[in-house]
Amino acid sequence: MKAQQAGGHTADRRGVMFVISSPSGAGKSVLSRLLLQADPEIRLSVSVTTRPRRPSEVDGVHYHFIDVATFNQMKDRGDLLEWAEVHGNFYATPRGPVELALAEGRDILFDIDVQGTLQLYQRMRSDVVSVFILPPSIAELERRLKRRAEDEERVIRRRLKTAESEIAHWNDYDYVLVNEDLERCYGELKQILNTERLKRHRQPQLQSEISVLLRDLSVVLARPE
Amino acid sequence: MKAQQAGGHTADRRGVMFVISSPSGAGKSVLSRLLLQADPEIRLSVSVTTRPRRPSEVDGVHYHFIDVATFNQMKDRGDLLEWAEVHGNFYATPRGPVELALAEGRDILFDIDVQGTLQLYQRMRSDVVSVFILPPSIAELERRLKRRAEDEERVIRRRLKTAESEIAHWNDYDYVLVNEDLERCYGELKQILNTERLKRHRQPQLQSEISVLLRDLSVVLARPE
Repeated sequence: MKAQQAGGHTADRRGVMFVISSPSGAGKSVLSRLLLQADPEIRLSVSVTTRPRRPSEVDGVHYHFIDVATFNQMKDRGDLLEWAEVHGNFYATPRGPVELALAEGRDILFDIDVQGTLQLYQRMRSDVVSVFILPPSIAELERRLKRRAEDEERVIRRRLKTAESEIAHWNDYDYVLVNEDLERCYGELKQILNTERLKRHRQPQLQSEISVLLRDLSVVLARPE
Repeated sequence: MKAQQAGGHTADRRGVMFVISSPSGAGKSVLSRLLLQADPEIRLSVSVTTRPRRPSEVDGVHYHFIDVATFNQMKDRGDLLEWAEVHGNFYATPRGPVELALAEGRDILFDIDVQGTLQLYQRMRSDVVSVFILPPSIAELERRLKRRAEDEERVIRRRLKTAESEIAHWNDYDYVLVNEDLERCYGELKQILNTERLKRHRQPQLQSEISVLLRDLSVVLARPE
């Protein structure tokens, strides 16, 4: 009853596109890292980008580094699920690896902003489960941003400004969690992912299980009374 | 930030209409009982019925016993969320208690069939979370039905016949669980309920929490640089 995949992977279910968004400083990065470390069935989405590779980066791990011509081709062919331009460079999520992962029952974690989330909705709504992480208070958000010693006042201010427009979109998310206590918030995040994996439309193998039940039932009911 | 209710109950969230359906013998009754015993926030929906009260039944606990004229009035006024006729008697879910429970953040368990579920969808789709419980096999379903000593062959046969048409509607449910191992299945059921309680649209208090965040953020951003 399990669909055998080309790569030898056995798909029990369809994967989840698990989107986590939050203002900078609300704890998204820590939560994502905890989830990726603890759960072998979910991996971080690898974006394509047109910006040059930094010496510390590995092609195919941190990003797929592509040129602008390739980016435009992919965009025109509908091969990009979402894209954005940041400081003159393009960043995007390629469709191929996502479709493959979903079919093989692997989940993909997206650490993207509101605009990226809305773009994913347009193309893959039923596959996306979106979670918005809120800080418990603005005072706490400021404290967390200031604790990152490298950020100067100007950077913190810009982050807070961005936070304002991001938070205004809380209503576009399936779930909204307040990260007051990290362990509790992480527990809720895991629980959401585990439950969404159980959704009927992510259980394609049910179709054949039901067929067997109905066939056996018709055999039993055909027996003389 | 909590909405104070008339009855003094404090609503942190909107309740869930938790629907569990299954063919007779798949384990729905045991699962429902476990859930009701373990979780004080969910209660079984009390139906209205036009059939006479049995000596062992208490009005308002097992059913609200009403006459046919009252039933028809309620139906005509749109006060029934779903209804059915069984052996000449009417059974229905009255709207009032459900709306009150939802507003007070209490969940209601519905132990109803496919037709009832489809009727609830028509009126309350965003409040309903539906779970269909499957037996692991038809052989096991027959065994479980036969273990109930009081059921004769004819009754079992009728139940299996009904099971056939019920199972054909598995596709109408949000979640489908196979009850192979009771503890595991119960764990999944609890997890679904807990996660659905977290859904953004069931967290009306978020609106005011967000307002506070945005107000505090605008104060911070208004400070001179």
